[in-house]
Amino acid sequence: MFQTFSEPASPDQGPPRLAALRAVMTREGLDGFIIPRADAHQGEYVAERDSRLAWLTGFTGSAGFCVVLQDKAGVFVDGRYRVQVGSQVADVFTPVHWPEVTLGDWIAENAPRGGVVGFDPWLHTVTQMRDLESSAGDVTLRRTHNLVDLIWEDQPPPPASAAFVQPVELTGEKHDDKIARLANTLGPATCAVLTLPDSICWLLNIRGDDLPRTPFVHGFAILHATGDVTFFVNPSKIEDIKDHLGPKVRIESVEAFLQVLSVLDGPARIDPASCPVIVADTLRDAGTQIIEAQDPCALPKACKIGAELDGARAAHLRDGAAMARFLCWLDQQPVGSLTEIDVVKHLEEQRAATNALRDISFDTISGAGPNGAIVHYRVTENTNRKVDQGLLLVDSGGQYVDGTTDVTRTIAIGEGGAEERRAFTLVLKGMIAISNLRWPKGLAGRDMDALARAALWEHGLDYGHGTGHGVGSYLSVHEGPQRLARSGTVPFMPGMILSNEPGFYKEGAFGIRIENLIVVETAPRLPDQTVPEMYRFETLTYVPIDTRLIDTSLLTETERTWLNAYHAEVLVRIGPLVEGDVSTWLTQACAPI
Amino acid sequence: MFQTFSEPASPDQGPPRLAALRAVMTREGLDGFIIPRADAHQGEYVAERDSRLAWLTGFTGSAGFCVVLQDKAGVFVDGRYRVQVGSQVADVFTPVHWPEVTLGDWIAENAPRGGVVGFDPWLHTVTQMRDLESSAGDVTLRRTHNLVDLIWEDQPPPPASAAFVQPVELTGEKHDDKIARLANTLGPATCAVLTLPDSICWLLNIRGDDLPRTPFVHGFAILHATGDVTFFVNPSKIEDIKDHLGPKVRIESVEAFLQVLSVLDGPARIDPASCPVIVADTLRDAGTQIIEAQDPCALPKACKIGAELDGARAAHLRDGAAMARFLCWLDQQPVGSLTEIDVVKHLEEQRAATNALRDISFDTISGAGPNGAIVHYRVTENTNRKVDQGLLLVDSGGQYVDGTTDVTRTIAIGEGGAEERRAFTLVLKGMIAISNLRWPKGLAGRDMDALARAALWEHGLDYGHGTGHGVGSYLSVHEGPQRLARSGTVPFMPGMILSNEPGFYKEGAFGIRIENLIVVETAPRLPDQTVPEMYRFETLTYVPIDTRLIDTSLLTETERTWLNAYHAEVLVRIGPLVEGDVSTWLTQACAPI
Repeated sequence: MFQTFSEPASPDQGPPRLAALRAVMTREGLDGFIIPRADAHQGEYVAERDSRLAWLTGFTGSAGFCVVLQDKAGVFVDGRYRVQVGSQVADVFTPVHWPEVTLGDWIAENAPRGGVVGFDPWLHTVTQMRDLESSAGDVTLRRTHNLVDLIWEDQPPPPASAAFVQPVELTGEKHDDKIARLANTLGPATCAVLTLPDSICWLLNIRGDDLPRTPFVHGFAILHATGDVTFFVNPSKIEDIKDHLGPKVRIESVEAFLQVLSVLDGPARIDPASCPVIVADTLRDAGTQIIEAQDPCALPKACKIGAELDGARAAHLRDGAAMARFLCWLDQQPVGSLTEIDVVKHLEEQRAATNALRDISFDTISGAGPNGAIVHYRVTENTNRKVDQGLLLVDSGGQYVDGTTDVTRTIAIGEGGAEERRAFTLVLKGMIAISNLRWPKGLAGRDMDALARAALWEHGLDYGHGTGHGVGSYLSVHEGPQRLARSGTVPFMPGMILSNEPGFYKEGAFGIRIENLIVVETAPRLPDQTVPEMYRFETLTYVPIDTRLIDTSLLTETERTWLNAYHAEVLVRIGPLVEGDVSTWLTQACAPI
Repeated sequence: MFQTFSEPASPDQGPPRLAALRAVMTREGLDGFIIPRADAHQGEYVAERDSRLAWLTGFTGSAGFCVVLQDKAGVFVDGRYRVQVGSQVADVFTPVHWPEVTLGDWIAENAPRGGVVGFDPWLHTVTQMRDLESSAGDVTLRRTHNLVDLIWEDQPPPPASAAFVQPVELTGEKHDDKIARLANTLGPATCAVLTLPDSICWLLNIRGDDLPRTPFVHGFAILHATGDVTFFVNPSKIEDIKDHLGPKVRIESVEAFLQVLSVLDGPARIDPASCPVIVADTLRDAGTQIIEAQDPCALPKACKIGAELDGARAAHLRDGAAMARFLCWLDQQPVGSLTEIDVVKHLEEQRAATNALRDISFDTISGAGPNGAIVHYRVTENTNRKVDQGLLLVDSGGQYVDGTTDVTRTIAIGEGGAEERRAFTLVLKGMIAISNLRWPKGLAGRDMDALARAALWEHGLDYGHGTGHGVGSYLSVHEGPQRLARSGTVPFMPGMILSNEPGFYKEGAFGIRIENLIVVETAPRLPDQTVPEMYRFETLTYVPIDTRLIDTSLLTETERTWLNAYHAEVLVRIGPLVEGDVSTWLTQACAPI
């Protein structure tokens, strides 16, 4: 079982650790120190060693930071974690409403005038520090070693999982070819510094187990315009894959990274949105010219190629069969007999039973009734709710070697009420609007986001998150640079995988979300087409949508046609993969409306 | 009759004028000189005196510029004018495809290395020159007096129409109150320099006849944070309205503008997108701190208030009745008996017959058959086409003292073919999608533009212009800052008037556009609404949409309901304003489908 249901709350450990940190601050001549929930790779998950925020404060949320001053310690958390932080941290910590209050403003207001606040330059990006420095008033921000590491006696070592090869049958392109291709795109730069593990894993066709939920190998790399790569990684991690990496990939220890950076011939390219400050510092101190530009792997990685898409399709059929088994089982249980945790467990069992599951792609969101309205809900023993009459929202996914899945279904438990059915149908209309869309080449997520919402808007409803995010190929389930959201400015290109997940949340009552993964493809030319090139989405996810929750009077003929065609396709693709009860259930669930 | 149908083409005058200009360039030590089609106020129309581009080159289009070098003279025109420029300029001028080729790139490539190119700092904005300076390579750009003015012997004087008062019954707010209100919004600036005539006319509640199509008074102004205004204007123009302007408005001659700027106490606010370079230069040379921000009148002017909206509604009813008379007459004429010019004349007659028409709001676009596919078509004696079997696109508007109108209808002449009917219906679907939209406060034009296109996209079609532009209150028919387009980033606010005009153009065959003016309003709360505040559009334009061109099988029930309700409303509002034949025609045109 990958998922756990505990929410460690040990606020008692906070005060002595905070006192120890303040003592070190005094010794180092600092008035403050910043502890972000981040490692040097700026991902969604951090290793145990890098869980400094949780170790110091007790707060285990997936985003936030702490600023420790001598007389105050602010714990910055966003709206998702306002309740959780209260139960996890002792009262020596002051929760701060972030991002309403920014780090810079809080420091400017609370640190002593002319004071000095330290930070670990590995853990903050160039862009973050630029913003911070422009807002911290007369406070000086000083780069320093990590003070938490000085007082954390049993701090775990960095993760050291054995990396493994992602076979070319699944990546579709040899890593040497990727390196050669990208080396030619660096423009005036002689090299690009890579600090994002998904970029490095994609480029080198490797994966690892350094983190939960995302098959990353931690390390750094320099892609040289000459067509080779320097890979900074704990050598023990790559012993088994040296042959794979081959002569184009020079191995160096992580410890050698800064030293090598300091003797690079420039100009060197960095991505300020993800590059640690210390990398830019080291280059600048060495007099190396810096070019700021997007990580050169970002777009090529986002645009999946044939083998990656074939893998994604296969993974989604396997995952769809597991989902069908789960949904069939769910329908067979008496109303009120299950808890949210039962649901998570059974679903993970179905995925595990495929014998292909490497991990879940994130902790399953299983939200019954009002818990469904908490967008980033993660069930724990404390919050575990009975799945009773009403709606159940289940958002989950699997990491398979051939692809990463992410699917949300909202299921009627017992009879759905009229309000729930109306909202469900409006959400479905938005989801179909995106699924059905054809659009001229060149548009980005922000040009389409409204199409998923217009039906909800008509009834005075909306949802407070983007419509979709990019998804990796057996990599992170949240991957940029494309987004199907008002903030999405990157034009969609063929091969980009996205989620399509409109929703509606009635606080204290119920939550609805319907999510398929979709992939951008060139749309076949229509007979009268005048637009030179158009794109559309291929659907990857094949899992029944609960038709018991549909108010058919709200659907247009086009929408009904889409839904019936979708379900017919689910039956064609998933039907042969299931048997017995599940087969019967699936046929019924896919019946035309 | 306001509109004319000539297209002056006198290419012979170009070569001697060009030679004279080059002689002056030599005398002044310049390798080049830039002649934009612009005056100091950066509007859509220029006075005769400022038609330097047309005088020098013969090119009369509404956008473009010429760069004269000793051995080459590039005339930059966009796609609309590629054909026209060929017939209007002599071959001593080289047409340049703009904006594909930028001014800076062309200068960098064609001017002598290290050369000096002059420009008139009244005619270029701060932003334009910043862009130009960053791209002109090693060419020096030098501010100079206008060399064309030196050689243009019979150059007309600046326009000097008598300004008149726009009554407070129509503006809804006294100009003293506007001044006091805006003076409080200048933040750290002590004043704002106003150079846009529509801002000044709006602020002072005045109008004038300095330009065709837009009731502008040319002048400059400084809005002081102390709550008064310095108005730089030819004193003869405002003799009749001195009492109106009152003690809060200090009059200075236009000639005193730079002198007053040079002794201003700063910081002074300018809008770099419209402010002439010479204004910024003068402030900077005087050591005055400059704050760059949007023209403080832009947003308040865009958000029309009660009296302005009442005026707009009244103007639209009057205009709608004129349009109904025109459309009825058009239907009565035998197919093939009219030309495009006949159409323009008869329509202008109907508007003039209201006895309230001050001007047309732009030259009527009357495009029969293939001419309808030319988006910015203006019929001339040379292009005048018989209105024959097929489609006729008529885009027109009136300037009334209480409002500015802009309406497009596409009319079936004889039988509409299936292709035309399908395209017309798809365009209509987009136009209805916008008309019917409710949306959460905070969205801008770019968030909605796709909704007007999705139905066309589904069939492989699109249109190459934005969906809508802002419209003034008896001011310019094209007014910012709001736009219903992918480039529209200004959130829509109640009172903003916009056009809603999707289209489809099949080159060489036909053009379709359907346009209503709409105004943003707060949407009444729905019973189950969860979005805190929502907006919707009120429709201003009431003119029948040609139902003979609708393929009803392509409409949803919602769309059909909207159209029938719209036509019922046209009948209620316009019916009482027309009589006899027109009344009969209107009833038939508004019959439900």
